[in-house]
Order: sequence, then structure tokens, then C-alpha cells
Amino acid sequence: MPLKNYIRDIQGFPKEGILFKDITPLLIEPEARNKCLEILVSSLKDKKIDKVIGVESRGFFFGMLIAQELNVGFIPVRKPNKLPYETISATYDLEYGTDTLEIHTDAIQKGDRILIHDDVLATGGTAKAVCELVERLGGEIVQCNFLMELAFLNGRAKIKGNEIFAAITY
Amino acid sequence: MPLKNYIRDIQGFPKEGILFKDITPLLIEPEARNKCLEILVSSLKDKKIDKVIGVESRGFFFGMLIAQELNVGFIPVRKPNKLPYETISATYDLEYGTDTLEIHTDAIQKGDRILIHDDVLATGGTAKAVCELVERLGGEIVQCNFLMELAFLNGRAKIKGNEIFAAITY
Repeated sequence: MPLKNYIRDIQGFPKEGILFKDITPLLIEPEARNKCLEILVSSLKDKKIDKVIGVESRGFFFGMLIAQELNVGFIPVRKPNKLPYETISATYDLEYGTDTLEIHTDAIQKGDRILIHDDVLATGGTAKAVCELVERLGGEIVQCNFLMELAFLNGRAKIKGNEIFAAITY
Repeated sequence: MPLKNYIRDIQGFPKEGILFKDITPLLIEPEARNKCLEILVSSLKDKKIDKVIGVESRGFFFGMLIAQELNVGFIPVRKPNKLPYETISATYDLEYGTDTLEIHTDAIQKGDRILIHDDVLATGGTAKAVCELVERLGGEIVQCNFLMELAFLNGRAKIKGNEIFAAITY
């Protein structure tokens, strides 16, 4: 079955007018999950990756699996006040208001080759903020990697100059 | 190196008087992470597991890896209003106030053999709430599985009757 069969549309979540893409059916089905992981990792052939970032919190799922598959470090990028050690943060605009992400300052060494993984590339605001965090710590972004891309929102424009990969495109 | 060397003590996080156990050094070091995963999974030999629950959000890390290693389904148990489909919830007491966890109603079929994974067993309130969710959906709890147990808080008492395993004990 195509991977899209394991993504469930939820109308009106988290608020009216939004069509939410629920990935839990993909997480619960090991065969589909493996196929998805294989696609995500196949995009990384011959790229040397030192560490994988997973973005809180749906980016933790496949981010962790990719890191394990590549046998490299995993770095959580989190919402404010969740990471206990010294952090830097980046703030980005949402439709209404702003949001902030943090990373531990000791998570990336200068020159580390970093894969950024999140579940969805939508407007690109989150991804851009994570790119900024990586660059400020001296990391090199090898690829911005997503389970899904909502292409009609053109998030790619916000992170142009970076390699971008998505396993599923809407 | 012993796994404890990859757990970092942070004094005063998230608030004064608390000694927080930071697991990010373990996530970023693939060799230690693999060793930890091996220990967690070795406790499951010959147990038939249908699905692994990871508890939001630090339980997602090794919960996902265990599910992948066992090649079984992964179920996120989350804070309120994060899961988009139909849910049931359980509320439990904290030191001040209460907290609530939710699970998708279609995540567990009657008779499913469930492994519950979280990063820390502390007072046991969270684990007890998750056990309640599993039981209400007709699942059978095979083991409550933790990265760390803070034994001095005696969380085991709250989930007695279940098999309990922790890779690291303080």
C-alpha cells in the first residue's frame, strides 16, 4: 500500500478550517513504518551525517529511527524550558503570534554535518528556525528531511539553499 | 563506560530543589544508546509484545527504538489536545495540581499485549495513568519499562501487580 494510506486526514484539528495529517496509523504499522524509514534513509546515501536533529515532538519519531539506522547521534530540538542544560533559541512567526525552539549549546560541534528531520514541511517557519540554530552553533546542514511536504504552502522558499527531501508530498 | 556516565545531573531544573536527570548525552552517543537499547530489549526476551507505548515526550525516544527493534507498532500517549483522533484520557495528581494523558481509542485492540515505556519512573503517577488507559481499552500490560528508576521515590508501589524493568536505578 502507498504510504499515504497510513496518513489519516482529520478535519478541523487543531482548529476549524485546518485539515490535519495524522501520522499515528503509520507509527503503529511496522511494515509501513519500515518502508517509510527506508525511503527517508535512501535519500541520504553517500552523505556523511554526524548527527540527526528531531524537532519536538512529532519529529522525534522518525528522527530517532533515522539516527539509529545511520548509527549517529540524535539531538532533540525542543520548545522553551524543556531542555535542562545551556541552550540557544530561535523565535519564528506563526499565523498568530510567535513560537520558539531551543537546542543545547553542546549538541553540535563546529563542522558537524547535520540532518534536520521533522514530520511536516508546511510554511517552513519551524524548519528555518532550526536551520538558524544549527548554523549559529557552527554545524553544516546536509539536508532538511521531512516525512511530508505540504507543497501548496511553499515552505521550501523559506529554507532555500538547503537540500530538501520529503517522503510524501501533498 | 557505565550508562550512568551518559546521564547528566542538572541541579535546580525545572525548578529549585530538583535534581534533573538529563538523558540527552545518552541520545547523542550511538554506542551508549545502543547498549541501553540492548538492555531494555533484553528484558523482553520470549515475551510476546504487540505494541509499544511511548509516553510524551521523553518516552518517545527509546519507546520508538524498542518498537522498531521488536518490529511492532508504536503508540504515542500524549498530553491533552495533541492527538487528533478520538481519545480517552486519564488524570493524575502532581505535587501541585493535576496532569492528564490521552491515547487514541483505536490504538489498542482487546487482548493486545502492550509494553509501556517512559524515560523515568519517579512517583509512579504517570505510569499508573498509562496503565489505566491500556486497561480501559482492553490491552494487557506485559511490562512497564523505564530508562531510569528513582527508587527512593517508590513509584513501584503505584503500579504494583505489573512487571517493572528499568535499565538504570538511582
